[in-house]
Amino acid sequence: MNIFDERESDIRAYCRVYPVVFDKASNARQTDEDGKEYIDFFAGAGVLNFGHNNERMKQAMIDYIQNNGVTHSLDMHTTAKRRFMERFVNIILEPRGMPHKLQFMGPTGTNAVEAALKLARRATGRREIVAFSHGFHGMTLGALSCTANQHFRAAAGVPLEHVRHFPFGCEKICQDCHLGCGMASIDQLRAYYLDSSSGITPPAAFLVETIQAEGGVKVAGKAWLQSLEKLAQDIGSLLIVDDIQVGCGRTGSFFSFDDLDIDPDIICLARASAAWARRWR
Amino acid sequence: MNIFDERESDIRAYCRVYPVVFDKASNARQTDEDGKEYIDFFAGAGVLNFGHNNERMKQAMIDYIQNNGVTHSLDMHTTAKRRFMERFVNIILEPRGMPHKLQFMGPTGTNAVEAALKLARRATGRREIVAFSHGFHGMTLGALSCTANQHFRAAAGVPLEHVRHFPFGCEKICQDCHLGCGMASIDQLRAYYLDSSSGITPPAAFLVETIQAEGGVKVAGKAWLQSLEKLAQDIGSLLIVDDIQVGCGRTGSFFSFDDLDIDPDIICLARASAAWARRWR
Amino acid sequence: MNIFDERESDIRAYCRVYPVVFDKASNARQTDEDGKEYIDFFAGAGVLNFGHNNERMKQAMIDYIQNNGVTHSLDMHTTAKRRFMERFVNIILEPRGMPHKLQFMGPTGTNAVEAALKLARRATGRREIVAFSHGFHGMTLGALSCTANQHFRAAAGVPLEHVRHFPFGCEKICQDCHLGCGMASIDQLRAYYLDSSSGITPPAAFLVETIQAEGGVKVAGKAWLQSLEKLAQDIGSLLIVDDIQVGCGRTGSFFSFDDLDIDPDIICLARASAAWARRWR
Amino acid sequence: MNIFDERESDIRAYCRVYPVVFDKASNARQTDEDGKEYIDFFAGAGVLNFGHNNERMKQAMIDYIQNNGVTHSLDMHTTAKRRFMERFVNIILEPRGMPHKLQFMGPTGTNAVEAALKLARRATGRREIVAFSHGFHGMTLGALSCTANQHFRAAAGVPLEHVRHFPFGCEKICQDCHLGCGMASIDQLRAYYLDSSSGITPPAAFLVETIQAEGGVKVAGKAWLQSLEKLAQDIGSLLIVDDIQVGCGRTGSFFSFDDLDIDPDIICLARASAAWARRWR
Repeated sequence: MNIFDERESDIRAYCRVYPVVFDKASNARQTDEDGKEYIDFFAGAGVLNFGHNNERMKQAMIDYIQNNGVTHSLDMHTTAKRRFMERFVNIILEPRGMPHKLQFMGPTGTNAVEAALKLARRATGRREIVAFSHGFHGMTLGALSCTANQHFRAAAGVPLEHVRHFPFGCEKICQDCHLGCGMASIDQLRAYYLDSSSGITPPAAFLVETIQAEGGVKVAGKAWLQSLEKLAQDIGSLLIVDDIQVGCGRTGSFFSFDDLDIDPDIICLARASAAWARRWR
Repeated sequence: MNIFDERESDIRAYCRVYPVVFDKASNARQTDEDGKEYIDFFAGAGVLNFGHNNERMKQAMIDYIQNNGVTHSLDMHTTAKRRFMERFVNIILEPRGMPHKLQFMGPTGTNAVEAALKLARRATGRREIVAFSHGFHGMTLGALSCTANQHFRAAAGVPLEHVRHFPFGCEKICQDCHLGCGMASIDQLRAYYLDSSSGITPPAAFLVETIQAEGGVKVAGKAWLQSLEKLAQDIGSLLIVDDIQVGCGRTGSFFSFDDLDIDPDIICLARASAAWARRWR
Repeated sequence: MNIFDERESDIRAYCRVYPVVFDKASNARQTDEDGKEYIDFFAGAGVLNFGHNNERMKQAMIDYIQNNGVTHSLDMHTTAKRRFMERFVNIILEPRGMPHKLQFMGPTGTNAVEAALKLARRATGRREIVAFSHGFHGMTLGALSCTANQHFRAAAGVPLEHVRHFPFGCEKICQDCHLGCGMASIDQLRAYYLDSSSGITPPAAFLVETIQAEGGVKVAGKAWLQSLEKLAQDIGSLLIVDDIQVGCGRTGSFFSFDDLDIDPDIICLARASAAWARRWR
Repeated sequence: MNIFDERESDIRAYCRVYPVVFDKASNARQTDEDGKEYIDFFAGAGVLNFGHNNERMKQAMIDYIQNNGVTHSLDMHTTAKRRFMERFVNIILEPRGMPHKLQFMGPTGTNAVEAALKLARRATGRREIVAFSHGFHGMTLGALSCTANQHFRAAAGVPLEHVRHFPFGCEKICQDCHLGCGMASIDQLRAYYLDSSSGITPPAAFLVETIQAEGGVKVAGKAWLQSLEKLAQDIGSLLIVDDIQVGCGRTGSFFSFDDLDIDPDIICLARASAAWARRWR
């Protein structure tokens, strides 16, 4: 019996689907311990938008380590943080006229979502968040309340509260779909929120992915997103775009919404953004 | 106006206390951008128990990167994961006769706590968790419900539910303390749980730090911890030790509870554990 | 200053709208303390479907009191309870082939709803209830969670949870209404419940009024109610009809749904039902 | 098979303990349908503190009905309400110097408790209520969250939240009791509330019975109640006395706390209070 079967938690997923032990990785390829090479279409569930072990990034990492760069500082200031912020502001935010500030969380996407939820609730004084069917936002309790998949939700062991799910506005309405996607759903939401006896009240924020990745590569309609933003503004709710899986250049432009004429109040990014900013240095 | 004031979120803490920009770090010392050297008593809030940029660790990191080691694999198997697991089992678990399995979470401590809560709730079919006054377990919603500090809790923006706090059993009972610490508190808890009209029912788990770090370096009494474990066993609850801030050798032995004659059902570790296992290689 | 202004709680409603002190009441008329007569179109918010102080009822009451009938017995058996049950079963249930059992609550409608919610949750092992926009089901915490009106809900002082509101299926679709009433809403609900990533799961029960009274006299469509019942059956949820304000003969037949070809699992009645059963004696 | 077995809900309690059908009741005696007489020590679980069918009350009832007195008026003003309020103020409140206002709820005790919880939460802007082990406050969802008995609580089918239970301060400390009753428990609570890292925050109100009836006739200590009131005042919480089962003269004086030198912010009464005020007419 190998060490994985013997000592790794039964709660594991991808390694059951790919029953192989990887040893090396470079750009689009991984090599297992027997030397067999694989083209990696999975790319870390989309995280590795620059591929494995990009040579320029490797060299930058090695230089940083060799020069005793600060690798752990909580939220204290470092020259590396300043450099990252200056690049991010100059290259990403200023050309777009975005006044947004940067809040640094732990290294995982779910932490960014948890922070966005706290911020939206504090800024509005409201409790409820609206998320959308088929959305994925993470697995810690706050983010999991926003994730739609029943399998993930059932693992919580407690009721997942203060979040309400509505149908996602797919760009392409499927023939047999009765979920009520599309533009009508925004009119319905607006009617709900304007009706003081609908049983629901305006949320702190709408949390949306412009392209649902985990949920099966569903692309939000541009007009739907714009209507959603308009609705949010009209009822005093924030618009949060969770760009963790599809931002940072994965759709061609830096933000997934660069061509969508929307202006989110909060944007969640993770992982690849640091690599990206460095690449333009 | 510098980039930090201009573009970093107002939600920042440590950098307000240490108004300096660090550039380099080595072992116990950090150097700011003006070349001034500091002895780092803070050590990343206790994370850096091997110091900054230990030379042997740096070299291992650089070798790993240069050899195109797999750096992102979700939970897929890699030769590095196997090596880590073999070392951890051989050096830590087997000598102690511990049958525990390893579950790998995201890189932050709060993720480990969230996973422990899910696991305990699933294993017992119960909902409630008992945590202790002055405990700190993280800032994502599930872990935050267990954290005691009112300042952190108030940031949630939603009620923090399904967790109950009881007084922590300090080793040393302070003169003016009326919190009911000490052995009497366990007798009281036992009486509660045996009384079907107390208003409370046995929890899924008790979540405890053997030494509260964030909460002000409070050391749990050995007899109190043993009584807590006995109570947990008697009422079908699990004992979870959150060893994130004080495990991994920080108290001399690997686990903070190595000399305490308790046998927790779940142990939360983070960050330094990987570095530690590597050091013994 | 009169005693009402001086000593009655500021939380009062109807007496502010009708600033008069009533002294006597008979059938459809009330008389104030100055002897002025009013036709009572309000009828106790619809409770008094037999009018005030019906002569035959008065006499039955007086006879019962004079004969020392049992007036308080909790749920203990009395000859009066037996007589009521026999009449109710013979006149109401058996002719309709209804196998329903009778559960006696406290005297208010909200208590009947609270009991129905408990029963549905226990019978199904599920937690969530679906109620509808503009519905009114009472003011105690469980029933209030089902009531849609935001003014009433806001008085709770705690989040109202474990209940989800969907649009009510009005018989007549209004020109400018975007709430998504009508048959499409049932197809949408069905699509939600069949989709394991919609973010919502089948409820313990659907709680519905066939005619919303407090909500503005909205009549549910017959086809909509039948589709709702079919949906409930298909996904293992119960159908609860809250007939407190419109049952007991108020719509002509005894149950408001007698002509609607639906067969609810639980029916909530209150107040006038006792008077009614007595009338047929 | 009789009608009760056949058609009454399985959810019944007292009629299983007393398997007899009562027909008449007068003062302390009940008579079953076979003419057998019983002395009623149960007295409607304590509700009937004036006995069954008191002759003077019967006559007052009959006169009222015969004269077409208003029997249903929601919260509209009637001459009967005025008379009741004037008597209650003159006989009960003014001699005690109590400035309290009267809020009329539905006829059950649980409704009075639900209203008190709403009022306390609104008045303080806080969410949590503190209730005590072995307390009973009703069975609708808000009141049930305050009731301690696990059998009753489990019937809710949802988590009972926003209420915290602490040990009741019995007058007589039992030999083997470890619940932490008595004066020490108030010091402990005070220490909790003054400590911003205890994990708990000051509640909207403390809800207490001066004598627990359903919970087994436990009498609160006078000093304990006074300390509780002092604590409530010091931390901005209200004191609610639930006098539903032991007020209205049942302990000799009108309020159960008349000799206890406490001044509750809210007092819950039900049922017998109307009968009482009438008796002094």
